[in-house]
Amino acid sequence: MAEIATLDALSGLMARQRAVREFTKDVVDDGLIEQILEAATRAPSAKNEQVLRFVVLKSPESKRQVAAIVGEAPGPGRTPWDEVPVLIFVCAANPFGDTATGAAAQAGSVYPGIQNLLLAARAAGLGTVLTTSRAKIKEAELRALLNLPEGMDIYAIIPMGWPVARIGKNRRRPVSEVAFRERFGDAW
Amino acid sequence: MAEIATLDALSGLMARQRAVREFTKDVVDDGLIEQILEAATRAPSAKNEQVLRFVVLKSPESKRQVAAIVGEAPGPGRTPWDEVPVLIFVCAANPFGDTATGAAAQAGSVYPGIQNLLLAARAAGLGTVLTTSRAKIKEAELRALLNLPEGMDIYAIIPMGWPVARIGKNRRRPVSEVAFRERFGDAW
Repeated sequence: MAEIATLDALSGLMARQRAVREFTKDVVDDGLIEQILEAATRAPSAKNEQVLRFVVLKSPESKRQVAAIVGEAPGPGRTPWDEVPVLIFVCAANPFGDTATGAAAQAGSVYPGIQNLLLAARAAGLGTVLTTSRAKIKEAELRALLNLPEGMDIYAIIPMGWPVARIGKNRRRPVSEVAFRERFGDAW
Repeated sequence: MAEIATLDALSGLMARQRAVREFTKDVVDDGLIEQILEAATRAPSAKNEQVLRFVVLKSPESKRQVAAIVGEAPGPGRTPWDEVPVLIFVCAANPFGDTATGAAAQAGSVYPGIQNLLLAARAAGLGTVLTTSRAKIKEAELRALLNLPEGMDIYAIIPMGWPVARIGKNRRRPVSEVAFRERFGDAW
């Protein structure tokens, strides 16, 4: 039987997941990308619809085209769209409809897989950053670039590569500030 | 330094995440629940807003009240709201607004933490099932029950407990069917 992560080892990994925007020029092997995408497919989805699709961009020309579309000025916090080794576009059709219930089912079928992807990349020592707003702001142009079929939307663009700096622990509010017992506001 | 999950161990865990709806009567210790919630807080959120809040129901009376509200008839696939050891309500306010960009930022700030929670529970040997539709359909009554403040919404209800049956591997489409290279439709 395969080794399975313990809770302590998983917690240690999750505590060291941070947004990375500076990458070395080193390539990321296709085999490793495939294992990371496989992890993403393992996440739950409503009615097991498995809505997620991934378009992986590695060619310099594709990445230049993305950079030209998203058009971010250089500076701190800038995502280096055209320099990162890999850009993963996370796409999905929505079989659940646009009601509040359908939107929740769709979101609950898309982002758990994205989180699996980010965690798997981190476990491999890769850096990533989850971006959602650029995909929405420039969705029409990006859809055309990727040849997305009708009804297939872009939910995230994830730059991925080997981090320049060591990825340290993230900082979060303690559980005592975000968890309650039986009723909201009652101390955990 | 703490042990950190390897990609192989993480993949093994993710491949064994499945929805569980049958639980033993055994209690789940608060210390374990706290470690699982701590894992949830470690997920990324847009602008590091850390929007997630958790209301943990363990009292039989609270769970009976939930069951009375969601009112599911017994049968296969039914969630045993009033019998499960723990019900975790995942709540959040939305600081990003209701535009397409804001909704994506919010969803990308809520469900990654939910997935961390589900994975952490699985790593501990606990069973869970991610439910989103009941929370939306009955949100007004559930909000009143939990004393949620204005603007705090319910995104998911997660039953959690020790599984009756062994949790086996899930089945998913292979990466070759869901991943593409450079353009949608071009074989990975």
